[in-house]
Amino acid sequence: METIMLDRSAIRGLFDKVKSEGRDALTAPEGKILCDAYGIKVPQEGLAKTADEAVSLAGSMGFPVVMKIVSPDILHKTEAGGVVVGVKSEEEARASYDKIVANAKTYKSDARIAGIQVQQMLTGGQEIIIGAVTDGSFGKLVAFGLGGVLVEVLKDITFRMAPATREDALSMLDGIQAAEMLKGVRGGEAVDREALADMIVRVSQLVSDYPEIVELDLNPVFATKDGAIAADVRIVVDFDQPEPRPRPAKEEIVAAMNKIMRPRAVAVIGASAEAGKIGNSVMKNLINGGYKGEIYPVHPKAEEILGYKAYPSVTAIPGDVDTAVFAIPAKFVAGALKECGEKKIPGAVLIPSGFAEAGAPELQDEIVAIGREYNIRLMGPNIYGFYYTPENLCATFCTAFDVKGSAALSSQSGGIGMAIIGFSRSAKMGVSAIVGLGNKSDIDEDDLLCFFEQDDNTKIIAQHLEDLKDGRAFAEAAKRVSKTKPVVVLKAGRTSAGAKAASSHTGALAGNDKIYEDVFNQSGVIRAKSLRQLLDFARGVPVLPTPKGENVVIITGAGGSGVLLSDACVDNKLSLMTMPDDLDAAFRKFIPPFGAAGNPVDITGGEPPQTYKNTVKLGLEDERIHALILGYWHTIVTPPMVFAKLMVEVKDEMKAKGIEKPMVASLAGDVEVEEAAEYLYAHGIPAYAYSTELPVEVLGAKYRWARGAGLL
Amino acid sequence: METIMLDRSAIRGLFDKVKSEGRDALTAPEGKILCDAYGIKVPQEGLAKTADEAVSLAGSMGFPVVMKIVSPDILHKTEAGGVVVGVKSEEEARASYDKIVANAKTYKSDARIAGIQVQQMLTGGQEIIIGAVTDGSFGKLVAFGLGGVLVEVLKDITFRMAPATREDALSMLDGIQAAEMLKGVRGGEAVDREALADMIVRVSQLVSDYPEIVELDLNPVFATKDGAIAADVRIVVDFDQPEPRPRPAKEEIVAAMNKIMRPRAVAVIGASAEAGKIGNSVMKNLINGGYKGEIYPVHPKAEEILGYKAYPSVTAIPGDVDTAVFAIPAKFVAGALKECGEKKIPGAVLIPSGFAEAGAPELQDEIVAIGREYNIRLMGPNIYGFYYTPENLCATFCTAFDVKGSAALSSQSGGIGMAIIGFSRSAKMGVSAIVGLGNKSDIDEDDLLCFFEQDDNTKIIAQHLEDLKDGRAFAEAAKRVSKTKPVVVLKAGRTSAGAKAASSHTGALAGNDKIYEDVFNQSGVIRAKSLRQLLDFARGVPVLPTPKGENVVIITGAGGSGVLLSDACVDNKLSLMTMPDDLDAAFRKFIPPFGAAGNPVDITGGEPPQTYKNTVKLGLEDERIHALILGYWHTIVTPPMVFAKLMVEVKDEMKAKGIEKPMVASLAGDVEVEEAAEYLYAHGIPAYAYSTELPVEVLGAKYRWARGAGLL
Repeated sequence: METIMLDRSAIRGLFDKVKSEGRDALTAPEGKILCDAYGIKVPQEGLAKTADEAVSLAGSMGFPVVMKIVSPDILHKTEAGGVVVGVKSEEEARASYDKIVANAKTYKSDARIAGIQVQQMLTGGQEIIIGAVTDGSFGKLVAFGLGGVLVEVLKDITFRMAPATREDALSMLDGIQAAEMLKGVRGGEAVDREALADMIVRVSQLVSDYPEIVELDLNPVFATKDGAIAADVRIVVDFDQPEPRPRPAKEEIVAAMNKIMRPRAVAVIGASAEAGKIGNSVMKNLINGGYKGEIYPVHPKAEEILGYKAYPSVTAIPGDVDTAVFAIPAKFVAGALKECGEKKIPGAVLIPSGFAEAGAPELQDEIVAIGREYNIRLMGPNIYGFYYTPENLCATFCTAFDVKGSAALSSQSGGIGMAIIGFSRSAKMGVSAIVGLGNKSDIDEDDLLCFFEQDDNTKIIAQHLEDLKDGRAFAEAAKRVSKTKPVVVLKAGRTSAGAKAASSHTGALAGNDKIYEDVFNQSGVIRAKSLRQLLDFARGVPVLPTPKGENVVIITGAGGSGVLLSDACVDNKLSLMTMPDDLDAAFRKFIPPFGAAGNPVDITGGEPPQTYKNTVKLGLEDERIHALILGYWHTIVTPPMVFAKLMVEVKDEMKAKGIEKPMVASLAGDVEVEEAAEYLYAHGIPAYAYSTELPVEVLGAKYRWARGAGLL
Repeated sequence: METIMLDRSAIRGLFDKVKSEGRDALTAPEGKILCDAYGIKVPQEGLAKTADEAVSLAGSMGFPVVMKIVSPDILHKTEAGGVVVGVKSEEEARASYDKIVANAKTYKSDARIAGIQVQQMLTGGQEIIIGAVTDGSFGKLVAFGLGGVLVEVLKDITFRMAPATREDALSMLDGIQAAEMLKGVRGGEAVDREALADMIVRVSQLVSDYPEIVELDLNPVFATKDGAIAADVRIVVDFDQPEPRPRPAKEEIVAAMNKIMRPRAVAVIGASAEAGKIGNSVMKNLINGGYKGEIYPVHPKAEEILGYKAYPSVTAIPGDVDTAVFAIPAKFVAGALKECGEKKIPGAVLIPSGFAEAGAPELQDEIVAIGREYNIRLMGPNIYGFYYTPENLCATFCTAFDVKGSAALSSQSGGIGMAIIGFSRSAKMGVSAIVGLGNKSDIDEDDLLCFFEQDDNTKIIAQHLEDLKDGRAFAEAAKRVSKTKPVVVLKAGRTSAGAKAASSHTGALAGNDKIYEDVFNQSGVIRAKSLRQLLDFARGVPVLPTPKGENVVIITGAGGSGVLLSDACVDNKLSLMTMPDDLDAAFRKFIPPFGAAGNPVDITGGEPPQTYKNTVKLGLEDERIHALILGYWHTIVTPPMVFAKLMVEVKDEMKAKGIEKPMVASLAGDVEVEEAAEYLYAHGIPAYAYSTELPVEVLGAKYRWARGAGLL
């Protein structure tokens, strides 16, 4: 990419002029100035005042050219015979010059003629659209698609956050459905990928440098094997854009979040001795959950609550307080929050509803302002609170929860939070934290990402969300965090109906789902397609070791499962290894003659445990294989628990030799396979009964993460 | 559609000529003859021998036209100046005639000139491809897509079995991704849908009438608002096509299947007293399963087996036998099968493997021939057998199974059969039958469809398959059967990797998945995307009453579930009702002021049981609502089982008043919701814990069926 030589003051002057004239769009010449400044190729053009100049200009830019009259007195150029397209030679250029001038004089004898514009004429090439939009959550995004029906009818377009890197830009060329078109079809030539990527990067830089550009369209761009030229540029500006959401520095976020999530002392504002009250449930959860820090109930009158000395206000509490849990009606929150500010409490957990989600945005604005004034980070409002199991902390009115482990989950909705709790308990999925984010007046998913990133108790982060208040902050955090810990997201409000429901639920602006999809990919986020998938990924992905390569092998007792598992591999972008001859022969030694080696390795249904053992051991030992998918078929010869225990034995035996590979299992059989699946899961092999899809989805998620993190 | 006037003997003659000349393609003029005969519009053309004739011809077909020299001595017409395109007027036609003749003479003075071909020139319009292919399983199919990159790069093409009806053809126009293109985009005009549909129907009729046409392409067809003309026709023929699979009449199928599935007497060939042997397991399952008919063990030497008198051969059995279950090695099957023939046993259940799937197609061919000779229907080989619960019949070596109900399932694979058994038992899904089809040497899915269609014990049919040996027979049966009973299919081998695995598993030819997809749609088949979905649909769809209209309403305690449920509605093609004002007001009366009416109706999380009751009752009572999706949020105020029992109460109360509507539920909460889900399911409300997707998928499947069956 050429260095961009910018005359920033000139560009600034251009925008100032547009602003002073009250315009919201740039003229074509203004657009060209910006393109030239950023090295975005547009057709060359020049003004010729004589036929000789026209010939020389055309020669320098190359034929064919278009020639047009330039006269303040002629508005309808074509009508005046003032346009000639497809001028192919010096001779024609000279003749056209004379003809246009003559036509103009005939059309309007007293017309002032400034000259003839000579413009490079674009012919052929693949029509491309490169553009930029401004998203309420993600800010500037660069867009790429093929011209014509593909963008218009099939919405075959891809986005990246701006500024985009060359790698981002190149990934856009492969990110559309019709990507093959760029490689040349029907005997056509492949386009110049570097030139297109370069143009994408330049556009993304331009809109990042000048935030007043809210929309930009290069449409069409003609791409050929030799380069790319934008035939038309359209730029829309807005000088009155909303203030960005304040973003504390990462260190500040981490410091505050550590205090909130791992507090030395918790105050419960609205603590109550009366069963059924939220302030009572919160107290009980703190106490019964086993939290070891100080607990300070706050109540206007009570002396003590549930055996703990009560205080009339947080300001009356003798020691420091890190987290204040609010269990009082919305209208009292602002007052109590100010007291938290005076007490220098860094975090407020705002359980109450009755704010933006209930048609009272002014109440929410008020508490946000107080939070900023006193530097209190706000979780909520309109939430169930949160759990942080390493500290035995249940700062919530929901059920207490104590299944410890390494998955950190969050949800924007209380109902989904309860589903997380139920699933986690039922599936014995150990969690480090469950956090309710609700209205996200302040603390957002990116704050959680920053905390969990440095939290040694967390190995995977799974988030349910309806919108991102600051998508850019999220994407930046996710891109960094996902390099070390998988980030899984279930984005609700994907569809128009879902978006409508989200807006009336938490006031969420669900946004353009294609943008979420592309930004998630750009940030290394694993997107879950369903609530169950979010939960299954949170459970299964941390169980699996990271694969060291792309070669997946299926070993199955049930041929039918092998077929469905193969389909699932393709669906989940897993590569079934092409079996080398020597390995094929090695597998064949262990299986009956009517079994099938290749991949899947079909050991057939009637085999004894030893056959499973031999083949799986071989699969683990051979260095060319990187992951195994097991298909089990329940028979009398190899009952479910025999299979399960044997697989764990083989796995442990290999682990002792330093061999660790991801393994998942699909179990087909009578109800006893459910116990076997549980045993396998508990021992590091994610396994599912009656399903060929779920185990492969979990393995696929692990691979997606490893690829995004650059580990493959 | 105009009546087609066919001169069949002329067409026959044309094909005979092609055959005798050993060609595998028709010439353009031959193609035109077929198109003309079938009323498929192609450009008009004619031979002019004078300039006057050229003028008159061009005038009759309309300008512009193309004019071309016709001379046996001029091969390279363009080189000879023998072609003029874009002839726009009588004047130009006359001049062109003279010019072409003059050019020809200049080019080759002694050239014999037969005249000038005048051909209608097609300009503009949407480029379309209409074609036909021959599929090994489905036979003749008609194909439709848009010209250019859409078919080539995006594979945006749709198929229907030929002959296609007008409705089929019209559905193809909506069956492509780029369907909007046909309605006019970028200010273009919509194409003439009837003309395109008409052309599709005619093509489908042509290829059906002449099976020797194996491929046909009209590419491009130019479609405008006034009609459609095929600019080019390409026809490939094959006079040596494989024999179709024999197809007994429906009545014969039903008679035989009734004998096999509900036999008065069963013989077990290879019965054994030795535990662990397949012939022993089959005997035990028959006896312990509670089968009330006669059981005849067949064994060369034994006097009796498990208390039943044994016979050395089926021919020695005194009474009639309806079903013979084979539990002997492959090599002995043919001999025993002949004896079944002599005994006039109508059905053989061939458990043994070692046939086509194991590289011994000749063994399979042999038994198929015996089956045909003696009119014995063959199930398998390479199967687990089958269950028919209304007769307490377990004709299998797998576990006995006795959870009676109305779902009939089949699988091509034994492993999948075991998964069906395990899931059915675990989920308490009552089944009428589970059938293994394996290699499908004879009995195929369409035979099962014919049986289950008339089987009063079956309400839904769910089939796992890797291929269809006779896709056409299946589609015809499914189209009929699905009008009264839902048919759900899981097609394995969807992907290239899956297809490869299927081929080495049961020798299945997985075929083009897009064709399966389209034919399933054309036949009213509900396609399951995964094994779990097949099972969940089999379980849930028969539980639900048939909806009377498309208006779906979500009533939820958890707003977050409401958002995800809305997304799931869109994914599953369900229509969220736009809430009429009066109904909105009626719902609002029952919910707190900060709840949201509209759709979803968000009653909010803290509500008592009565709020769920009031709103659900209203939803059931109001005639404008046709189905309900419930979102439950576990709270202390409304515990899971309280909610579940109340919902069933309301449902039963309404049922007593004659009101029945499909209801499904998504339960978000702690582990107690699992028991509640089970209770709801058992009482007619399919419910899932920790999932917003699964209940909506089940409702979506019910709707898909109802639409396909013409009930909506």
